Parts: sequence; structure tokens; C-alpha cells
Amino acid sequence: MTKTLKEYQLDERVDTFALLKSVEVRMTQQGKRYMALQLADRSMTIKGMKWDATEAEVSEIKAGKVVHIQAVRQAYQDKPQLKVLSIRLTQVGEPQDPTDFVSAAPMQKQDMAEEVSAIILQITNANWQRIVRYVLNKYHDAFLQFPAAKSNHHAFAGGLAYHTLSIVHLAQAVVKQYEQVNASLLYAAALLHDLGKVIELSGPVATQYTTAGSLIGHIVLVDEEIVLAATELKIDLQSEDMLVLRHTVLAHHGLMEYGSPVRPMIKEANILHQLDELDAGMQSFDNALEQTNPGEFSPRQWALDNRSVYKPENISFNSETD
Amino acid sequence: MTKTLKEYQLDERVDTFALLKSVEVRMTQQGKRYMALQLADRSMTIKGMKWDATEAEVSEIKAGKVVHIQAVRQAYQDKPQLKVLSIRLTQVGEPQDPTDFVSAAPMQKQDMAEEVSAIILQITNANWQRIVRYVLNKYHDAFLQFPAAKSNHHAFAGGLAYHTLSIVHLAQAVVKQYEQVNASLLYAAALLHDLGKVIELSGPVATQYTTAGSLIGHIVLVDEEIVLAATELKIDLQSEDMLVLRHTVLAHHGLMEYGSPVRPMIKEANILHQLDELDAGMQSFDNALEQTNPGEFSPRQWALDNRSVYKPENISFNSETD
Amino acid sequence: MTKTLKEYQLDERVDTFALLKSVEVRMTQQGKRYMALQLADRSMTIKGMKWDATEAEVSEIKAGKVVHIQAVRQAYQDKPQLKVLSIRLTQVGEPQDPTDFVSAAPMQKQDMAEEVSAIILQITNANWQRIVRYVLNKYHDAFLQFPAAKSNHHAFAGGLAYHTLSIVHLAQAVVKQYEQVNASLLYAAALLHDLGKVIELSGPVATQYTTAGSLIGHIVLVDEEIVLAATELKIDLQSEDMLVLRHTVLAHHGLMEYGSPVRPMIKEANILHQLDELDAGMQSFDNALEQTNPGEFSPRQWALDNRSVYKPENISFNSETD
Amino acid sequence: MTKTLKEYQLDERVDTFALLKSVEVRMTQQGKRYMALQLADRSMTIKGMKWDATEAEVSEIKAGKVVHIQAVRQAYQDKPQLKVLSIRLTQVGEPQDPTDFVSAAPMQKQDMAEEVSAIILQITNANWQRIVRYVLNKYHDAFLQFPAAKSNHHAFAGGLAYHTLSIVHLAQAVVKQYEQVNASLLYAAALLHDLGKVIELSGPVATQYTTAGSLIGHIVLVDEEIVLAATELKIDLQSEDMLVLRHTVLAHHGLMEYGSPVRPMIKEANILHQLDELDAGMQSFDNALEQTNPGEFSPRQWALDNRSVYKPENISFNSETD
Amino acid sequence: MTKTLKEYQLDERVDTFALLKSVEVRMTQQGKRYMALQLADRSMTIKGMKWDATEAEVSEIKAGKVVHIQAVRQAYQDKPQLKVLSIRLTQVGEPQDPTDFVSAAPMQKQDMAEEVSAIILQITNANWQRIVRYVLNKYHDAFLQFPAAKSNHHAFAGGLAYHTLSIVHLAQAVVKQYEQVNASLLYAAALLHDLGKVIELSGPVATQYTTAGSLIGHIVLVDEEIVLAATELKIDLQSEDMLVLRHTVLAHHGLMEYGSPVRPMIKEANILHQLDELDAGMQSFDNALEQTNPGEFSPRQWALDNRSVYKPENISFNSETD
Amino acid sequence: MTKTLKEYQLDERVDTFALLKSVEVRMTQQGKRYMALQLADRSMTIKGMKWDATEAEVSEIKAGKVVHIQAVRQAYQDKPQLKVLSIRLTQVGEPQDPTDFVSAAPMQKQDMAEEVSAIILQITNANWQRIVRYVLNKYHDAFLQFPAAKSNHHAFAGGLAYHTLSIVHLAQAVVKQYEQVNASLLYAAALLHDLGKVIELSGPVATQYTTAGSLIGHIVLVDEEIVLAATELKIDLQSEDMLVLRHTVLAHHGLMEYGSPVRPMIKEANILHQLDELDAGMQSFDNALEQTNPGEFSPRQWALDNRSVYKPENISFNSETD
Repeated sequence: MTKTLKEYQLDERVDTFALLKSVEVRMTQQGKRYMALQLADRSMTIKGMKWDATEAEVSEIKAGKVVHIQAVRQAYQDKPQLKVLSIRLTQVGEPQDPTDFVSAAPMQKQDMAEEVSAIILQITNANWQRIVRYVLNKYHDAFLQFPAAKSNHHAFAGGLAYHTLSIVHLAQAVVKQYEQVNASLLYAAALLHDLGKVIELSGPVATQYTTAGSLIGHIVLVDEEIVLAATELKIDLQSEDMLVLRHTVLAHHGLMEYGSPVRPMIKEANILHQLDELDAGMQSFDNALEQTNPGEFSPRQWALDNRSVYKPENISFNSETD
Repeated sequence: MTKTLKEYQLDERVDTFALLKSVEVRMTQQGKRYMALQLADRSMTIKGMKWDATEAEVSEIKAGKVVHIQAVRQAYQDKPQLKVLSIRLTQVGEPQDPTDFVSAAPMQKQDMAEEVSAIILQITNANWQRIVRYVLNKYHDAFLQFPAAKSNHHAFAGGLAYHTLSIVHLAQAVVKQYEQVNASLLYAAALLHDLGKVIELSGPVATQYTTAGSLIGHIVLVDEEIVLAATELKIDLQSEDMLVLRHTVLAHHGLMEYGSPVRPMIKEANILHQLDELDAGMQSFDNALEQTNPGEFSPRQWALDNRSVYKPENISFNSETD
Repeated sequence: MTKTLKEYQLDERVDTFALLKSVEVRMTQQGKRYMALQLADRSMTIKGMKWDATEAEVSEIKAGKVVHIQAVRQAYQDKPQLKVLSIRLTQVGEPQDPTDFVSAAPMQKQDMAEEVSAIILQITNANWQRIVRYVLNKYHDAFLQFPAAKSNHHAFAGGLAYHTLSIVHLAQAVVKQYEQVNASLLYAAALLHDLGKVIELSGPVATQYTTAGSLIGHIVLVDEEIVLAATELKIDLQSEDMLVLRHTVLAHHGLMEYGSPVRPMIKEANILHQLDELDAGMQSFDNALEQTNPGEFSPRQWALDNRSVYKPENISFNSETD
Repeated sequence: MTKTLKEYQLDERVDTFALLKSVEVRMTQQGKRYMALQLADRSMTIKGMKWDATEAEVSEIKAGKVVHIQAVRQAYQDKPQLKVLSIRLTQVGEPQDPTDFVSAAPMQKQDMAEEVSAIILQITNANWQRIVRYVLNKYHDAFLQFPAAKSNHHAFAGGLAYHTLSIVHLAQAVVKQYEQVNASLLYAAALLHDLGKVIELSGPVATQYTTAGSLIGHIVLVDEEIVLAATELKIDLQSEDMLVLRHTVLAHHGLMEYGSPVRPMIKEANILHQLDELDAGMQSFDNALEQTNPGEFSPRQWALDNRSVYKPENISFNSETD
Repeated sequence: MTKTLKEYQLDERVDTFALLKSVEVRMTQQGKRYMALQLADRSMTIKGMKWDATEAEVSEIKAGKVVHIQAVRQAYQDKPQLKVLSIRLTQVGEPQDPTDFVSAAPMQKQDMAEEVSAIILQITNANWQRIVRYVLNKYHDAFLQFPAAKSNHHAFAGGLAYHTLSIVHLAQAVVKQYEQVNASLLYAAALLHDLGKVIELSGPVATQYTTAGSLIGHIVLVDEEIVLAATELKIDLQSEDMLVLRHTVLAHHGLMEYGSPVRPMIKEANILHQLDELDAGMQSFDNALEQTNPGEFSPRQWALDNRSVYKPENISFNSETD
Repeated sequence: MTKTLKEYQLDERVDTFALLKSVEVRMTQQGKRYMALQLADRSMTIKGMKWDATEAEVSEIKAGKVVHIQAVRQAYQDKPQLKVLSIRLTQVGEPQDPTDFVSAAPMQKQDMAEEVSAIILQITNANWQRIVRYVLNKYHDAFLQFPAAKSNHHAFAGGLAYHTLSIVHLAQAVVKQYEQVNASLLYAAALLHDLGKVIELSGPVATQYTTAGSLIGHIVLVDEEIVLAATELKIDLQSEDMLVLRHTVLAHHGLMEYGSPVRPMIKEANILHQLDELDAGMQSFDNALEQTNPGEFSPRQWALDNRSVYKPENISFNSETD
């Protein structure tokens, strides 16, 4: 069985398949052409340098493809890097499906789909349930395949559905603890809140922002989908049901500076915003801690307002305390 | 012919009709009931106090009605105020239409409607022209009657259309001066940019925010209308035409802190934002200067970030320099 | 059985006992002395005016005492107010215990104490468990009696313990959902995080900030208690156990602008901060919604960054969806 | 006829004259000396590298001179760059005037001078007209030659006058549309507002900030010139004419954080500020769009608060709509 | 000898002379005319109410005049207030000079003038010394009489010179402690830094902002004076001496948001800014502590970013520690 | 006698001892291993490059050691740099004490210790004097040896004590000038304010933040020491003496955003904050000016909010003006 990229040691010879996430053809200051690559499998993403790139390589090797590489694992500025000796596209009989090399959510698509269905049943308000069904149905596959971000938190295939379900689970705990919460509204808005990302982002492999994503943003994009659904389903857009659902989704970034056109003015909107922050924070800490040794501080994290975070040495996790 | 409210002098006896903009029944600290009123005609809005309000008055006199008053004009904390001696609803044969007492835009509705039609013809892109026609048609009357704000700039009947036309005029000057501007996009977005106010606000008399206005806001409300129009007209929502039009409208507040979910990333969006600020600034200065004597500073203006503004003594206006 | 203050109607004659929360002796502009009172029982707090206050009343009637009043319920600027006709301290045989008139947490002290004990057992790290026991023991009674704030969220007797338990419950849900969380650290810090309020505030009745509270603040005050406890228990202050516990408590306001001398750099510190915000938000929304009619917006809420919040008309609560 | 720098293709041999905008002598990490150059003609500015720089080259080749180069056009990190093979100063008979290599405003100096004269005639207030004449006369040549900035908007020879005229043109449109504007004040302040840049910047070639520019800034520098002019012309500094003119110029950055010691408190000051922002925005967008392919986003733009901007694919310009 | 205003007790009958700092004629809500007064002597400023003001009183009694009053000392909302029974202008033979009633700096004018002269001699750079002499000479009397502010810190007659000297004294301590400071520059800029206030403010009695003060501000006003002086004295405005002096004065507010058009970029400019803040802070704390009882907190102080400050009970001052 | 590092010229051969402040083993892009070094003696810190580092060198050469080097002085990107030809640890008989190579405060340790003792005697309040003695005694050596920062202001051995004494000296000038200052409190707090740095930082050589420093911060760390001292000395923690001392120390960063959990609410706390800023500003300017030629601007300084600072050409220092 093949080794993963993470398993190779410093100075070890690498001979494997990988997904080419990006490639840039550059010149050295002295004018020689080389290729700067990002290579990935499910264990990690690693930079690679192919010096003295040939014309053929430059024209053939494209981002999003599976490649075969021979290389040596080195380190550059404290980070692992591959000195790529040879690179070629894979052939018939070799791995060719990019999604086999993309890290994925810890749940299976099918399980996530089933759980979503179960939650929809808990939405007792008919209007909200119909809207959620309609919109999730329209984007069923993308919802289960897309990441929740280009990079940072939940940037893996299936990350969108996984992040959505995390929030629904937290929402269920909140509903259990506090009496005065409208569970239907909270679940409906939680299921829809980030769905605009299926239009904002390009897809699960080599994820980029789309033009629609940059010019409109996922918050308004999903609001538009809700409005179109309501029109299709003949639900009155000016009814309170529709106003509070749109508000709860629109306000989920909490602050206007973060792109919500309105601040949360309904209790369920405030809860959704807080749970979104909590779950994003969990993922951002986990990302940071993965790169950090016990007893040390991480590099500064853009997704955490530029904080570094500390990984305690002598700390154990909750399994023991259950 | 009747005097306007503004024409009465200090201590003069007032006997006239007025629109009752608001009424609150209060108690003095000693426990006597009185009515605090806002009365208006086209010349001004003035506070009034009806001491010792009777049960009948309290139950009958409602905001939004035309009333007949007898009063004395006084001043309280440097501001004019009426001591109302008697107040009653008007009867058949007396003025009863509230809109006769509301200040209005300096242009006639009909003239504004015609000018809007002429501008639509200058939108040479068919998609944008059809969208603008469709949406303006749907809200034709409200567009011509609504104010552009609850208070502050353009808070008068017809203010929405008037403010819109001011911006279109400035846009025409910009198009003339700078070569690389897409006039069709700029005019289309200018005509639509504030149209969500016909849903955000309650109407031209005794204007309040609606629930939809507070929970969603006029920026997203008009975006939803554009999306519905495109669907109805079978124009592809993901076409560049539709993306840049929605973007230009969504970004017109310029900053996310001011409620735009995206910042202007298209040149025409940036122009629209700047012209909106320029026209709003003109109105805010005019409002402030109206209350200010030459050679003095106005009270601080909320609409101008709390600035006071100065009214020069020896300054004359542009007629002379033409 | 006596009516509560809330049950009296407008213009009804009031004859009851109440807690005098504050009293100020003032002059009218015309120079007459009167007393402005705040009166409370568990149903509400209401302003009162005692006109023509006598010397005896002024010298005898003090905040924090139970009084007997005769009054008429009126309204002033839309708010209920009592015109107090007579006021006197209660005598033997009449109610005299202020805590009988203070609103209280929805849980009994004894139940809260037991639950806290149960949670302490879930702290499997011996150092943290000993610290928590030591400090909670030292302030046992105050912890169960104090409010969590002077006003705003959880400003009722027992509010401190109740708010603490709410956060522990949410923490338990988080521990259950996410694998990589140190439950012991999270529970220990959650139990201690606001305990400095027993020094910061004056007590459950007529709550004020103490001098120590204003000059030092509850965040540093509890850190000092932890340090003193560790010294007493001979636990090394420089051990990682002690550093991460102090950090988690110190960082719980999340931002330095909100008084935390450090931002959360440990995952459990970030969780505690988020849960603190979530629970405070729940209480602030409930406070706002209590004063609001269905289908209307609340007045602006200081505790919610000056937002008004909306109370939907047609919304039902989670009981139905369980 | 010689090719411009822009016309050379990748890998093409370059043999041409150029202006040397800047030169830095550096070492490679291995300790070899080389020269990093900025070379320009009117078509573009391009980086160049002269490896193995000789002592003679280092001492002779200075910024601001016209040079002859032989080079190869390459690309480094996606940007065009010249590998310079030989470089020498030009000799008699070859081009030697730096201004022949500097990009310039789209209007001729003479035309701009004439238009300025025409506008001065529209200033009907004698004091303002005399001040404007005096100060513009004093800096006549520099006003027509200087750029409006070191880099960013209007950073080309004649840019200062061109930017000034753009604002005057917009001001004329504003005067035409709004009745209550003092045109004389607006034109006078517009003509003077950025004139301090002739002291703040070093000149049209290889533009740098002067010491006076950094320590005082162009806003105060032009205010000082106005004050000196008034003294020379015996116009009372404390007259309202002089106060409002100085205010209008001083306030043109709009906010104190942007270097205006006062915010606009006069209507014409507010207009000037808005028009300045509008014109700067036009230039910043044009700069960004020049580097951007249709259907793509630009790199982030410092001059636009770090936004990227979008260049639509299918958009046409205003010629069609005229 | 007459009692000062401060010496009168609650309910005591007052019969004295005072300066009338301001007067407003108002109506009660019931429509009766009264005068709201601010009366002052050197001991304090106190509000007064003259109910039932006569026509004669209203037309005769003006701010800035010395008046004779008969009144009763009362309290309104915890603050002392006079119920004025009679008020009239003083006559020949009675006190008539307003400055006798204004609180003054703790130093005599003459002493301040002498000390300023002594410091000028310590400015060893001839250009700076000549500029300082010229400008201080031009505004000699105003410099010694004006307050340093309308209200807040140093708002007493002579406050400008006194604040200036405080800063010079601190500057002397800094010069003594740190070797690398240019004392001449620091002293010259310290003497001039706030001198623009003689134009910004109206004078020592009933101090208001002038139009020039509001539209231009004291920072630019004094820079203009320096420029005029240099021109008169034929000192080159572009010399480094003049640039650093102007910079040091212009930058003394430290931040552009506080009205300095440039931030301190010269060491002496930074020192002057810090000392200005230190001295202003001392005065603001003293103002706040004067209104505060030992062991209590002051009301929130606008001049201290809305802080309340604490007055310790058991604290003694530096005399003991000398 | 050996030359210092600063005395070597460009291209000169270097043969000397130095402290190795840091070392990083890196790869060139082509995959060759080299060592990037920071070498220092008391004259300067300089970068060094040891190309083709051997295994032996990599394993032996560690930060914090004294080394012998042979090298050539070069320049890289305008900064001096050593091309290291050979490097080895020093042996017996050669210099081996790192502190001999660290730049130090301009005062001797012994002199600083004596001056601190003298100041302690000026603290006339017994509680404060005992606390200061106790805490300074506990950390006596570290207080005299530690720097005041990792980099930036006072980043030299003994810098902590030196910065502390600078502030005490300024405090003495303030006490002399202003009457109402409690000198004992100010001196006690000044002596303690930065003492937490002996826990926050790792020591005088190769200074890093400790885990305690990052997670708790020096402000709270010293507060904890004060609390422990008071407990040990049986001084009541809730006494006003202890509250105001802790407050004054806790508030010395002035703003919560800068890490003080409370803003200065006591006059002495405000003074300490201002003096801390003044002294830090002096050091930051001196650091910037050391790298700057007369008549030029420094690079932007992180420690001065990213300002560049100007070094005047023709300016002389205060010796002349004394």
C-alpha cells in the first residue's frame, strides 16, 4: 500500500501519486523557468519545486489533475517542501479521480443526507419546512460535496454539510436548555444559512470564489434562493414567517462589518450567529493546533484575528472525563 | 387665504387647519393628563401641548388626521411651540386630505414620471432596460409618492423619485466628463438603488419603518425585486449582466458598516455610491442651514456625523455667477 | 393574599408592602422637596414620587428597607409610576426581610449547590478540582446569593450561580459534540469565571459596584483568588495546570477592549468566552422581549449594542417541536 | 521609429532609451553586487536587473537620467522584468530630457492654462479672485507640470492641473443642478485645494516627498500660501471671505484622520470634498482596471482600501449611449 | 467683607454681586416666561432661576455684566442652585469689572510674563528666538489673559499662559534627564503651541469659540502666525529651522483624529505632545476630584473619555514626602 | 585590543568573538543547507550567513553561546551582513560568558540598586513600602538584569531597572511641580509597574516570551505578586491602600486595548501611564534615529504606530542650552 505524503521523512525519496492543486510557472531572478506546485493527498498539502521545467511540462501539467511524481522531501523556511525530480499526468490504470485526493468531512455523504432529512421533520412550521425542502433539494448534491470555505475552517469536501450539521446539533442543545426558543425557525435557518456557498464557491476541488460569490456574496445569494422558492411555492413574501426566516439567515454574520446587511434582531437569529462563531472557532483552533507541538505556540492565525494559540503539553481530552 | 403655521408670530393667536403627525397622551409629574402633539402644514412642523386633555379628545384625536386648532404660539427652549386651546377633527366641507399638508418635492409627480421614462430610453442594454421597466412599473405610484427617508434628507412626499432623479442628473454629468463609464449600467442602477424604500417605509404620511424594512432593509429588498423580475422575464440570474446590476445596487452604501453586504468592486458601483453621498450631503446641509441664522453655526446634525455647520453672512448664490 | 405591584391597574389605589431599592431627595424647580423612589417586589420594579416629603420621612426612609405604601398607580412618559400618598417603614409583625422582595433565579439555592457539587466531581484533574473546591468553598454563600450583574443580564438574586450553571450545561453539550476538548479545564474555568463578582458587587439587594469592583474588576479579582488558593494548597503557580486555568478565566471576555488582559489562546478559553456571550445574549433578549408586545420592536437595548429587537407575533416555542 | 517598452514581447531582445526612475545597488545572498532598476518611458514602468554591476556603472548611473539599455524581456512572479545586459548614460545627440519619458496628462499644458484662466473669470468675488490669481501665478509652471501624487491617482506629469480641472468640471455640473451653491467659493477653493503639492512633492520626474511635504503636508502648505497672499494683497485675514476660503481648502480631505485639521462645516467645503473623492476614485479604478483582464478581478488596491475590483467582460462604454 | 457664593449654605438668603456668565429667557411648559442664569464669582459658578421675569429684566440683563442679586440657595438634582428673587445691573460705586469675578490662574500675570521672558533667553537658536519674541509680542496681553479652553482643563483667566508655563517646566525636567533633546526647539514650540487660542476663543470672560476658531482651529491659526512672522523677519520658510518648528507646533495633538494635520515625526514634537497630555490630564483629574467626596467616584468626565475617577479617602499629598 | 563588530568596514576580513543570539538551519531553494545567524557584541547585532553548513556545525552551534568567527563584512539590501567562513564554539581560555556580549543599560547594576533603595525610603506609607521591599527583594537579581522588552524600547540587559528609574525620575519632577500628588503611591507603583517582566520574559540573553508571559502577561503577573506579598505580610487585601496600589499598577497601560484590565481612575495611575508612554517614546525615537542619517527619514517604526521619524540636519542638543 502506498505511503501518504505525510509519512515521508526529511531527505526521503518520494514516488507517489498526488493531486496538483495549483501550478505557477515562474522565472528565477537569473531568468530560468521553473514550476511552483501545490501537491496534495488526504494526509496533507505540500509545496513542490520543479526546477528547469521543460516546455512540454509547462503546457501539459495543469491544476486539478492527478499526477505521478518522483521527488525528495526537504524543508524550506521550516516548512516541508518537495524537490520534484519528475512529474507527469497519470494514465489509464493509474489514479485519475481528483476527489480521491481531497480531504473530506468525518461523516459519509449518505449519513449527512439522512440526518438532514430527520431534522427537516422537526421543522413543524409548514412554510419553513417547504422552503427548506425546496432549496436543499435544488442544491442537493452541491450541499453535500462543497467545502464551507476556500481555506480556513471546514475547507474540505463535504465541509458545508458537516458545518451545517454541527450547528444544528448545537442548536438542539440550546433548544433543550432554554425554554423560549422557536426550534423550527432555528433549525430552518441553520440548514439554510451557508447554502449560498454552493454559488459563491467553485466546487470541492481547487476551490475558488466565483464571480457571483465575489460580487454578491453567499449571504444575499441564499436570501435570493429563499425568495425564489417562496414565489414558486406561492408563500407570501411579506408574511411574518418569510420575514423572520430571511432575517435570521441574513443576520447570521452578526455584524454589518462582517457582511450581514442587518444585525440580529430576533432571538433565534442571535443564537444562530453565536453558534456559527462557536463552530468556526472550534475548527480554526483545530487547524492551528494541528500545526503546533505540545508546549508551544502556533504561528499567528488569520482566521483567529491574528492570534497565536497555545497547545498545552499535559492536557488530555474529554474521553477520560466522560 | 389662510396663514401658514410659519407665518404666525410669537404670542399670536392661531386659528387654522393642520395635519396631526403624532400624538402622545402623557401625565404631568403631578398626575394630570395632557396631549403632546406634532402638527404640520407645508410650511413647517411644530410641537403643540394640549393641557387638561378630555377623555373625548384622547379617544378621538389620532395621528394622520387633519385637525382644526385654536392655539397661541409660544416658544419653549428656544423652539416654537403651540399652546393648544382647542382641537377637533375636521368635518365635511373642511380640509380632510392629509397629503395637502405634507411638504413635497420641488417637482411635480407627472414631470418626474416623464423624466424617468426618458432616462429608461437611454439604457441601451436590453436586459437592464427590461428589469428597470418591470420593477418601476410594479411600484410606479409608490415610487412617485414616497419620501426617501423617515426623517433627515429627502424626507418629503415624492422625495424618493426626486432624490433618484438628482442622482441620475449627476450621473449624466459624470458620463459626459469621463469616457470609460458604462452609462446604461449607471442609469439602471441609479433608478433602482433606493426603490426598496417603498417596502421599507410605510408611506408618505406619518412615515415609519415597516417590519420588513427593519428586518431586511431596503438594499436587500430591492435586490430581491430584481431577482424576481429577472425570473419573470426569463433573464439568466447568473449572467454577467445580472451580476453587475445586482452588485451595483447592493454596494451603493459603500461600506459594509453602512449596510451594503459588499463594497463597490465595479467602477459604476463606486460612482453610484459617491453620487448618493453627494446628494444626501446637499440635502443634509440644506436642512441644517434652514434652521440657522447667517453668521451662526447650526445645532449638531445627526445626519452629518454630528457636525454643526456654518451659514456665511456675506455669501451669495450661484445665480450671480452664471 | 396580597396583590403584586404588577397586578395593579392604571388609576387603581395601591396598599401594599415593597422593597425600597433607592431613594433620592430632590427639589422641584420651584423649590419644593420631594422623594423620588424605586420600589420593587418580585413582580416588577416601579418608580414612585412622594410629593411634599416631610423631614421625618426624609431622615427615616432609606434604601434597602421594606416599606408600607399607599399610592395611586399612574403613568409618566409611557412608563408606570406610583404617586405615593404615604410611606413608612414596616414594623414587627409585618414583612421586613428585603430578600423576600427580590426576584430570584428560577432554581432553588439548594438545587444549584448540589449541581455544582456534581460538576466538581467531573473535574478529573486533581489540581483544578482542589482549586475550584477551595475557592467556591470560601465564597459559598455569596456565590449562591449574588446576582450576576448590577442591571442587565442575570440581575437577580442567585443569578451568578444560575448563569454559571447555564454555561456549564452548554459546556457539557460542547464536550459531547467535539472530541478534542479538555472537559476538566472547561468545567473548572466555567465554575470560577465570574466568581470575582462576589467581590465586585455589593450583594443581592440594592446592588452596587464596590470600590474593589471598580478599581480592579471581577476578572482580576478571581485570578487573585486562584493564586491565593494555589499558594495555600501548595500547587506550583508556574505549572502548566495553573497557567492554563488562570488564562482560561482571564480571557473569558474575549477581547481586551472588554476587559480581558489577554485574548483566548487556548481552545477551552475560546469556548468559555463564546458560551458566556451566548448565555448573556439569551438573557438580554429575554429582558428586551419581556417589555415588548408581539409584532413590535423593543426600545434600544444598551446590553445589545443599542439594537432594538423584534418579538414575532405568530411564533411558538420549542415545546411543540420536542 | 523606436518601439516603446510595452511593445516588446517576452524573451525579445530590447535595445532602446529609457528614463532611469530609480536605482539600488544590492548584494545577492551570496555576496555579488547587482543593480535593481526602475526604467520607464511613456508606455510603462518596468523593473530591470543588471547582474554583476561594475564599479563604473555603480558610480555613474543615477536616478533621473536618461539611459541606453540592451536587455532581454522576461517575467518574474507574473510581472514583466528586464534582464539588463548593458546600461550607459546617453550622450549628446541622443535623448537626454527626462520629461520626454514621463507619462503625461491627456490635455496639453497650454489648454489647461487657458481653461484655468477662463474659470478664474467666473469667480465674481474680488477677494477670492485676487487670491487665486496671486497664488496660481506664483506657482504657475509647477502647477502645470507636477503630478497630483507620488504614485496612485493622477501620478503623471500635469496630473495636478488635470485633476484640478476635473474637479472644476464636476463643480460646474453641481452648480448647475443645485441652486443654493456659491459658485465663486467652490471654484476658488477647487483651483487651490491641491496646490500645496507643488511644495509637498519634488517635481514631475522621479517624484518623492520633500521634507516640507512630510513634515507639514500639502493641506497646511497651501493654507500658508493663501495667508501670505492675503497679507501681500492687504485683504483682512479675519474677514469672512478669508475664513471660509481657508476653511474650504483645509477641510477638503473630509475627515481629520485623513489629514484635514477641520471637518467640512460649510456646504461648498463638503461638495469639494465629495468631488475630490469622486475624481480620485475614478482614477484609482482606471489604474486598477488597466492591469486587469476582462472577466477577472484586479490585485488588491491600496488606493481603494485594499479592495480588488472587477472588470466586466461584456460591458461597453458611454459612447454608445450618448 | 462679602461672602463668596460658595460660602452660602443651603436655604440661606443670598445678597451679593456676581458676574452674569449667561442668560436664557425661557417659557415653562405652561407658558410663563423665566430667566435661566449662570452666575459666578471666583469661588464658583452656580445656576440661578428668576421666575416671572419682567419685560424690563429681560431687555436689560445681559451676559457678561456684573449684577446685584437677592436669592435663596437651594439644590436641584443634587446640584446647588439659586432661586433669584431680584436681579439688577450694578451702578456706579458698585463693582462693575467682570474680570474681578472670574477665577484666575494661580500665578500673577506679571510673574508669568517674567518667566516667559527668562525662558525665551534659553532659546539659543536665533531664528526660533526671534519668531517666538515676534509672535508673543504681537499677542502679549491676550496670551496672559486668555483661558486655555472654553470649559474643561485650564478654563480660567490666565489659563493659557499658566498651562504653557506648566509644560515648559516639565520640558525642563525632560531636558535635564535625557541627553539627546534640542532644548531650544522644545521651549520655542512649547511657548507657541497653544497661542492660536487667542484667536480661537473670544476672551477671558464668557468665553466662546470664534468663527475663526471653529472654521480653522487654533493649531493652524498659530502656524499661520509663525509663517507671517517669518516673512516679516525675512527668515526662509523652507529652511529646516522653520520646517521643524512648524512641524513641532502642528503635531502637538499627537493624532490626526485630534486635529493635528501631521503626527509627531520629530522627537521634540513627540515630547511636546506627551507633556501636553500629561498637563491636561492633571487639570482634568483636579476638576473631577474637586466635585467628588473622599472614598467616592466622580460623575463621568467628558474630558477623560467618559471615565469616572476615584478620590481615595486615606491619601495624603506630596508635602509629606518632600 | 579587539575591534568591535561595528568597527569593521565593508569588505573587511573579520576575526573575532561574538555572542550567537539565534541560529536557524535553512535550505536554499536549490536544496543546500545553510545557517542564518544573528551575531552580537555590545556594539551591534548583525546577521550572518554560513553557506554549506556541515552536520557538525549544525549539531554543535547553538543560540546563547559565545562563538569564534572568521568572516567578511558585506551588505545585503542596504543592511550590513557577515559572510561567515568559519564558526566554532569558544574554548577554555577564550571568552565564554554571554553577558559580556550583551549591550547594557547606561548605569551600573550597583548604582541602580542603590538608587532604588533611596527611593524606597521616600515611600512614607508603611504598607506600600513593605510591599515594594518584599517584591523587589524576591526578584532582586532579575530586576537588575532583565531587559524591559524582547525588542523595541529598553531591550538591553538592565533595561528593566533603567526604564523603571527613568520613570521614577520623571515622577519626581511631577511631584515637585504639582501639589496634589501622592508621591508615595506614585513611587511605589512606578517601582513595581513592569516587574512582572521578570516572569514574562526569559532573561537578559536571547530574550523570549515565556509561556506564563504569553498566557497571563506582565500586568497581571505583578498584580499576583503584590497580592501574595500582602498575604504574606498580613496586610488587608481589601484595604484602600492595597486597592489603589493594585489599581495604579494594573492601569498603567492606560487603555484596555493595550492590556490594562482597567483604565486609570486614580490621578497617580494616570500620571504613571503618561510617564510610561513618555519614556517609551524617548527610547523608540532614539532607536529609530540611530538608524537614520541627518536630513533623512527613518524606515517606518512598528513601535511608533508605523511612523517614520525625521532626523534634522542642523540641530544640536541640550548641552548647549544648559
